[in-house]
Amino acid sequence: MRYEEFTIEGRNAVIEAFRAGKPIDKLFIQDGCQDGAIQTILREAKKGDTIVNFVAKERLDQMSDTKKHQGVIAYAAAYEYAEVADMLALAKERGEAPFLILLDGIEDPHNLGAIIRTANQAGAHGVIIPKRRAVGLTATVAKTSAGALNYTPVAKVTNLVQTIEELKKQGLWFACADMKGETMYRQNLTGPIGLVIGSEGEGVSRLVKEACDFHAAIPMKGQIDSLNASVAMGILAYEIVRQRMQ
Amino acid sequence: MRYEEFTIEGRNAVIEAFRAGKPIDKLFIQDGCQDGAIQTILREAKKGDTIVNFVAKERLDQMSDTKKHQGVIAYAAAYEYAEVADMLALAKERGEAPFLILLDGIEDPHNLGAIIRTANQAGAHGVIIPKRRAVGLTATVAKTSAGALNYTPVAKVTNLVQTIEELKKQGLWFACADMKGETMYRQNLTGPIGLVIGSEGEGVSRLVKEACDFHAAIPMKGQIDSLNASVAMGILAYEIVRQRMQ
Repeated sequence: MRYEEFTIEGRNAVIEAFRAGKPIDKLFIQDGCQDGAIQTILREAKKGDTIVNFVAKERLDQMSDTKKHQGVIAYAAAYEYAEVADMLALAKERGEAPFLILLDGIEDPHNLGAIIRTANQAGAHGVIIPKRRAVGLTATVAKTSAGALNYTPVAKVTNLVQTIEELKKQGLWFACADMKGETMYRQNLTGPIGLVIGSEGEGVSRLVKEACDFHAAIPMKGQIDSLNASVAMGILAYEIVRQRMQ
Repeated sequence: MRYEEFTIEGRNAVIEAFRAGKPIDKLFIQDGCQDGAIQTILREAKKGDTIVNFVAKERLDQMSDTKKHQGVIAYAAAYEYAEVADMLALAKERGEAPFLILLDGIEDPHNLGAIIRTANQAGAHGVIIPKRRAVGLTATVAKTSAGALNYTPVAKVTNLVQTIEELKKQGLWFACADMKGETMYRQNLTGPIGLVIGSEGEGVSRLVKEACDFHAAIPMKGQIDSLNASVAMGILAYEIVRQRMQ
């Protein structure tokens, strides 16, 4: 189900967006605002576990298109988010072992779009992103996904480690991209799997890495540090495809 | 050897750039200009086989930073180009079978940069791009390559098919990315190889495709058309790496 990406400004507009169930990626509230309407908005944000940022008036003025933000601006997602359970259901429906992609802090919308596109082609059942320190489903992501967002569900979770632990109970194994891990060609990546890709700058964070069962390395023969995150995801995802096809 | 990307404007500046041996990617000359200085520039351009575009004065005015272009603007490359022979020499020096990447019309600088980065990590000996209908080594490409441009040579050729035919005589085999080809996992991609990747919109062009020995397909399990060009290149390049490592 598709929405246009949009910025919602002003108290009533934001309250209505929440009540209509629109997927709000981020909420910006002016420092010091705490009247009744703002309290209502904060309650709604809490219900949906929306990230709230308190910022100076100047920042809101800068972000505002209408210049009538009344101390509140919300960023709504261009697409609706799915639930992790939907992905497991999709795998079951197709009679396949679950194959999920988890992204630990991808901030570049072009990378996220390319990853959703590759996830679709590799036959993954969904992409899981964290709520914080990561880009959401913006219009740029939708465009870069080349239509894949219409087919591949994307879920947003509060805590990746917790999601990994819950999915392990359902029989999934987790492999994370890790330059210091064992070469991916030598690992058994068949079976129900979650592939974890880190951010460009930082890689996979320590706690997430510790939660993973396998640390899979792409052989690096060059003089530079790393690969582009969406390219690395493509290479690892297709090693899983290859092993599954054999 | 690194240059800053720059636009050179005006007759003397452009003549001097040519004479200093600066790598000029593209030359724009105002329609109807044909005095002595322009003739000199055209002769220099012909020597280096530089692409010349004749355009209306309005277009030059738009492109001009200085507003004093005198009917001539040249785009210089941010990096120096290598020769194909350098790549074969590099392979020999490393005691490896040549592994080259050929790009048939990649126009997006982010894709070209990501491909050079992946070529470096996959241990390829160079990247070959065509002079026409393709992006050159701009500053954006250099940045997106994450430093790989300092290590992986990039050559620019007039005719990709001719380059392929010449390299075949030196023992290389050519595999092109082709959705209608045989699944890459079932092909023998070891030995001296050139991997040909097409543009995002068009794929590999007909004549180049016909010149290739193998047509290698990435298994596509999704509902959409294709993969991002740099992701597709990464997946195919690493299938070559995998087969070489076995």
